[in-house]
Amino acid sequence: MRFGYIGSMKVKPGHRAEVAAVLIEAADGLRAAGCVLYLVTESATDEDTIWVTEVWESKEHHDASLQMPEVAAAIGKVMPVLTGEFTQQQTNVLGGLGI
Amino acid sequence: MRFGYIGSMKVKPGHRAEVAAVLIEAADGLRAAGCVLYLVTESATDEDTIWVTEVWESKEHHDASLQMPEVAAAIGKVMPVLTGEFTQQQTNVLGGLGI
Repeated sequence: MRFGYIGSMKVKPGHRAEVAAVLIEAADGLRAAGCVLYLVTESATDEDTIWVTEVWESKEHHDASLQMPEVAAAIGKVMPVLTGEFTQQQTNVLGGLGI
Repeated sequence: MRFGYIGSMKVKPGHRAEVAAVLIEAADGLRAAGCVLYLVTESATDEDTIWVTEVWESKEHHDASLQMPEVAAAIGKVMPVLTGEFTQQQTNVLGGLGI
């Protein structure tokens, strides 16, 4: 079953666009690693929060991606401007439209 | 800018698969209403929770969809087996992979 992930991260004030750009740039390389969806959004009500929804071929694909040099580099780039407040939900993908 | 929505709903014990099936069936009709993504997932850690991530052409498209007879019917069908506990996030879609 496809694995899903829904997470939020809080950025230090004024850094949201920069963090989103890094995440979107990194997403390109994820397809070959088994990523089906990597959706980057910003909260419409909190100007310092980013929400990401991901779908992967499996949880193993997701977990392995965290070891990719590009992913590690992207994490290293944004970490200094995050506040350290995260939420995360691991899910099983059931279906729907556009996926 | 495309409008996004990330929401969770809690179901009464034993009703998750039934609610997910109704949501997935209803998703088919949403494309013509401006829905780009309607991703139905179940929590991997809480057996009574469903997470939905949506992308719409605009917030107006999303809001208008709530008036569609099919959507109203789906809501009416699942409401009796939901606990009434919801979370919701409205977002602006920035980009990523697979969307």
